[in-house]
Amino acid sequence: MIRIAIIGATGHTGEVIIDILLNHPQAKITKLYNTSKESVNIADVFPKLKNRLDLDCKETDFDEIGDSCDVVFLALPHTVAMDYVPRLLSMGKKIIDLSSDYRLKDARVYEKSYNKKHKDASGLKEAVYGLPEFYRGDIKKAKLIANPGCYPTAALLSLIPLLALDLIEPDSIIIDAKSGISGAGKKVSRELLFIEVNEDFHAYKVNEHQHMPEINQIISKVAGKKLQVTFVPHLLPINRGILETIYVKKSKDLKVKKQNLIELYKRFYKNEPFVRIKKEGEFPRLKDVVGTNFCDIGLKEDTESIIVISAIDNLLKGASGQAVQNMNIMFNFPEKTGLML
Amino acid sequence: MIRIAIIGATGHTGEVIIDILLNHPQAKITKLYNTSKESVNIADVFPKLKNRLDLDCKETDFDEIGDSCDVVFLALPHTVAMDYVPRLLSMGKKIIDLSSDYRLKDARVYEKSYNKKHKDASGLKEAVYGLPEFYRGDIKKAKLIANPGCYPTAALLSLIPLLALDLIEPDSIIIDAKSGISGAGKKVSRELLFIEVNEDFHAYKVNEHQHMPEINQIISKVAGKKLQVTFVPHLLPINRGILETIYVKKSKDLKVKKQNLIELYKRFYKNEPFVRIKKEGEFPRLKDVVGTNFCDIGLKEDTESIIVISAIDNLLKGASGQAVQNMNIMFNFPEKTGLML
Amino acid sequence: MIRIAIIGATGHTGEVIIDILLNHPQAKITKLYNTSKESVNIADVFPKLKNRLDLDCKETDFDEIGDSCDVVFLALPHTVAMDYVPRLLSMGKKIIDLSSDYRLKDARVYEKSYNKKHKDASGLKEAVYGLPEFYRGDIKKAKLIANPGCYPTAALLSLIPLLALDLIEPDSIIIDAKSGISGAGKKVSRELLFIEVNEDFHAYKVNEHQHMPEINQIISKVAGKKLQVTFVPHLLPINRGILETIYVKKSKDLKVKKQNLIELYKRFYKNEPFVRIKKEGEFPRLKDVVGTNFCDIGLKEDTESIIVISAIDNLLKGASGQAVQNMNIMFNFPEKTGLML
Amino acid sequence: MIRIAIIGATGHTGEVIIDILLNHPQAKITKLYNTSKESVNIADVFPKLKNRLDLDCKETDFDEIGDSCDVVFLALPHTVAMDYVPRLLSMGKKIIDLSSDYRLKDARVYEKSYNKKHKDASGLKEAVYGLPEFYRGDIKKAKLIANPGCYPTAALLSLIPLLALDLIEPDSIIIDAKSGISGAGKKVSRELLFIEVNEDFHAYKVNEHQHMPEINQIISKVAGKKLQVTFVPHLLPINRGILETIYVKKSKDLKVKKQNLIELYKRFYKNEPFVRIKKEGEFPRLKDVVGTNFCDIGLKEDTESIIVISAIDNLLKGASGQAVQNMNIMFNFPEKTGLML
Repeated sequence: MIRIAIIGATGHTGEVIIDILLNHPQAKITKLYNTSKESVNIADVFPKLKNRLDLDCKETDFDEIGDSCDVVFLALPHTVAMDYVPRLLSMGKKIIDLSSDYRLKDARVYEKSYNKKHKDASGLKEAVYGLPEFYRGDIKKAKLIANPGCYPTAALLSLIPLLALDLIEPDSIIIDAKSGISGAGKKVSRELLFIEVNEDFHAYKVNEHQHMPEINQIISKVAGKKLQVTFVPHLLPINRGILETIYVKKSKDLKVKKQNLIELYKRFYKNEPFVRIKKEGEFPRLKDVVGTNFCDIGLKEDTESIIVISAIDNLLKGASGQAVQNMNIMFNFPEKTGLML
Repeated sequence: MIRIAIIGATGHTGEVIIDILLNHPQAKITKLYNTSKESVNIADVFPKLKNRLDLDCKETDFDEIGDSCDVVFLALPHTVAMDYVPRLLSMGKKIIDLSSDYRLKDARVYEKSYNKKHKDASGLKEAVYGLPEFYRGDIKKAKLIANPGCYPTAALLSLIPLLALDLIEPDSIIIDAKSGISGAGKKVSRELLFIEVNEDFHAYKVNEHQHMPEINQIISKVAGKKLQVTFVPHLLPINRGILETIYVKKSKDLKVKKQNLIELYKRFYKNEPFVRIKKEGEFPRLKDVVGTNFCDIGLKEDTESIIVISAIDNLLKGASGQAVQNMNIMFNFPEKTGLML
Repeated sequence: MIRIAIIGATGHTGEVIIDILLNHPQAKITKLYNTSKESVNIADVFPKLKNRLDLDCKETDFDEIGDSCDVVFLALPHTVAMDYVPRLLSMGKKIIDLSSDYRLKDARVYEKSYNKKHKDASGLKEAVYGLPEFYRGDIKKAKLIANPGCYPTAALLSLIPLLALDLIEPDSIIIDAKSGISGAGKKVSRELLFIEVNEDFHAYKVNEHQHMPEINQIISKVAGKKLQVTFVPHLLPINRGILETIYVKKSKDLKVKKQNLIELYKRFYKNEPFVRIKKEGEFPRLKDVVGTNFCDIGLKEDTESIIVISAIDNLLKGASGQAVQNMNIMFNFPEKTGLML
Repeated sequence: MIRIAIIGATGHTGEVIIDILLNHPQAKITKLYNTSKESVNIADVFPKLKNRLDLDCKETDFDEIGDSCDVVFLALPHTVAMDYVPRLLSMGKKIIDLSSDYRLKDARVYEKSYNKKHKDASGLKEAVYGLPEFYRGDIKKAKLIANPGCYPTAALLSLIPLLALDLIEPDSIIIDAKSGISGAGKKVSRELLFIEVNEDFHAYKVNEHQHMPEINQIISKVAGKKLQVTFVPHLLPINRGILETIYVKKSKDLKVKKQNLIELYKRFYKNEPFVRIKKEGEFPRLKDVVGTNFCDIGLKEDTESIIVISAIDNLLKGASGQAVQNMNIMFNFPEKTGLML
């Protein structure tokens, strides 16, 4: 039984980590923290936790952390997490950071995306990108996990097979993404009011979302050359789920030698517990992945191009579920433990 | 063609008054005001008005009002409207006030409900309660209309026939009310976020809503004795509409002589353009009234009690539609003008 | 580890039983059946089960059942379940029936409610009403559980404390109930289309719902005299959850001696794992119970009357969750096992 | 005052035509027909029409039509409308057909898309494609209007300026479309149930939707060469609205000479009453167009490509609103008459 501290327990991702770990047979939540000075019982923040978890959530106390946990989940906003990581690392704690603070290897790209100088160059070097399907080996040995963003998770699981096998024109990638509202966090703002969102739909941050550099960084590494995707996110009037419709041009190579793409994806992911490939003519639906840690992927091709459609629960495979998956890997638990939700 | 000024044009009810009057053949919106110092084009506030209404909305300018309108709609928050009314009355303008500032005849009851002293005793005396089905004569001659609240409109149209004809035990009234979210106005608060409201449902202000004294005042007048309803409002995860399920005990009288209640309601409202009585076994649905100025009413009785169910669009018959209906009456236009939406 | 067969596995309640049992440490689903002749893999019916449960669902095979399970969940429509029970009972299987076929002790009342003659008088006698909070002792020894209806569960947990302690006028009960759409099952009909339900709200089966006799039967037993509730159900445009707002008149007794009702409810339910009483001034919200097996209850009183508001997930505490709770009791597992969802 | 008959009055588009025409100052609905033998009052089909329109809807009666209308709206399903058109044409009636039966000039393409042989070659020749922004002159003189599909309307208004001015690589067009559920009509089927659609989102008919040939036909004509778009429609869990996110590659030409695309679109559409171009950095939202006849268009470019986002109400500009716009043109009414909703 490992002991868990969660810093930032009162946000969406914190809430979902708690939900998962309450049913994890080998983890025990010992401490909850946030950034506010006031202490509050977590069941007063989330009444659904009443009779399920009786812990106070208070300002982070590093001395207390030292004795009371084996791993720390950081469920803090971007630009805040990097204030906590160096000290926790120096205390020898394993860290899973759900913010974007340690995802971008290049501090200048980070600064451009988040309007803030990065303060922890050595942490950046230390951090392992926590996408288990591609970095499982590194995750096993990692001290600090940079847990991937929600949009990048769905995009990368869709694209890497094609790029790794050199099947597409790598500069042709267009990602049309749609996310439920929980992706926007819990900030109280006019555009997130029910009356604004319900029965509406619109694009936002058109081709300038902060997740683009994260996607670009990983696919460039896979392709061995600098790539840039076109990326338009949209806001769905639903609580949870991300669906991405991805358009790519086939490489000349692929146009010549016929491949069954669906079979190829099935082989590529055959040992992955959380990636499911749809049959021909079937495509992902949010309702099949929401509430689960799965990523569902469907494919359609014509002579010139390929359409890949993927779906995840943005709070599970796109955040807290993947974070627990990473924890399972770091502590040598069976990877599915606590995640067959 | 009469000229209209709207003060408070950027809120929900202001928006809907604009929508209605743009298709009203005898009214022209000449001025838009709100309480902010900054001037803004109304189409920048409501992009859907682009190419339909090109007016700036700015801080209220009483001098300008004097020359430019025949009637003023006050679409301001409660406790604010009474700062505007005395001056506008003294200028000889007709006023339709959508706030609750002039609905309660007793200033002490107002103070208790709205936590603020009432400043305009003479205005209170002047004001006519703008429920056309019962006060049409007074409305015709009125200078100041207190436009009814949304919950009271649905409640009173349901209850007055029973009370006026002495058919129920008057102290037995229970109103279980459900309202779409636009009833809560546009304030930016956590409990009105999409993520909080969507897929949720709950009661609020249980038996202590500020609309209760308004209902009590009118039904007491009708019954000729002081009455108090039990009233529980709930928040529906939809944009518009109020449905009220009302439970009353039959009077002894009614239990003896059998009456066909549906026929009785039909007769009672036979000349009313905006009240529709459902056939036996049929009951109101929000989708039949949302977007219209109608109030639909359905009835069910058993030996001891009567269930009345009524539905309105809270922003139309429950606010701006009724306000325009009152305007039509005040200016001798056919009552339906501009309201067959 | 006990072995489970589910008959009617492709409906809503079957789906949720599967969801729960996949995470139950002492139960293993061995067989899935439905009423159709065609065999189908359950993951083709519910794609979200892919990689989680690999079983075919086929026409019920009684021979096979004999060897392969310790308990049978019947998740069949009303009037169908009674065709299966006698044979399963004769085979010595424990049965948890989620339909209403064995809830009403009086076959004539059943016939009136469901338009069908009851075929299994001896089963009716055998059946134990599976509301653990009141019938735990009988459930422990039962062979056949009549799992309570969703509306009755929320109503009874709200009302029984008041009736058992003789605190209300027992013939004054009014239940205004609101249910999410999953309560209507999965039948393909016009009134359940998205375009009909979304942004709508309405009452249905006004004071004539088939769950009324079930509520009446139990509260009459508790009160020791024949009672009849007034009951109006409404359809919420959401997937899951029931909220009931219940109005009762205080007994003379209660009006004299002051009682703290909230404390009284807390004491009444102090050993119950799945009933949570709200603090004064707080009331249940669907979002706190949906996805859980809890029933949340809030209370408000004035001089004459009491308002009780309760909320459950109609598919969990209102159906499949309660069914598993009953299974836990029957097999002497800790009652919460697998239900801290 | 012209007289209107609507055939297919009980479907979505029929319902909306009625809604519009009830407020049209120069049109009077005289007859309602559908394909069923039973006569029904339209207010029993659409209770919201009670007290607004008192007409029976019955099986089409051609003799009666002859005397009672100047124009016929056909709001019938695809493959049915072509059974009505020849006879109505021979009677000298003007026809506005909302189905897709007369949109595709090539009967073989029609047959491929709709699995049915086209029966009316001469009607096909006669029909004018009713997109007023491009075919106003022809519409003015037309006897038979093929009213455009919803997806094509949003796509064509977005694409034609770019194609007409030769600014893009014409074979690079990718359309990612999202539609509210009313686009699917009113058929009673499992996949359109509330429980299936609510909180879900998915693609359908991936790159094989029947509206593709319609888009291809028009853009090929504009570009002067055969073009084929990539087109993926998705189903939004909302009632109304279509938003399309369209990705195109710039032509070499455009990459050289810098153009302000937004200004160019504004000029292109400067006399169009129902096309609104968004300012730089702003993009369409469904809530700004739903309930109106407008098409809002926003633009974003980078060095290589252009993203065009357009939004319409699928039942108004995408169907019935555009149909009335066409009627206004045919009868020389001001084009906006009755359409400033």
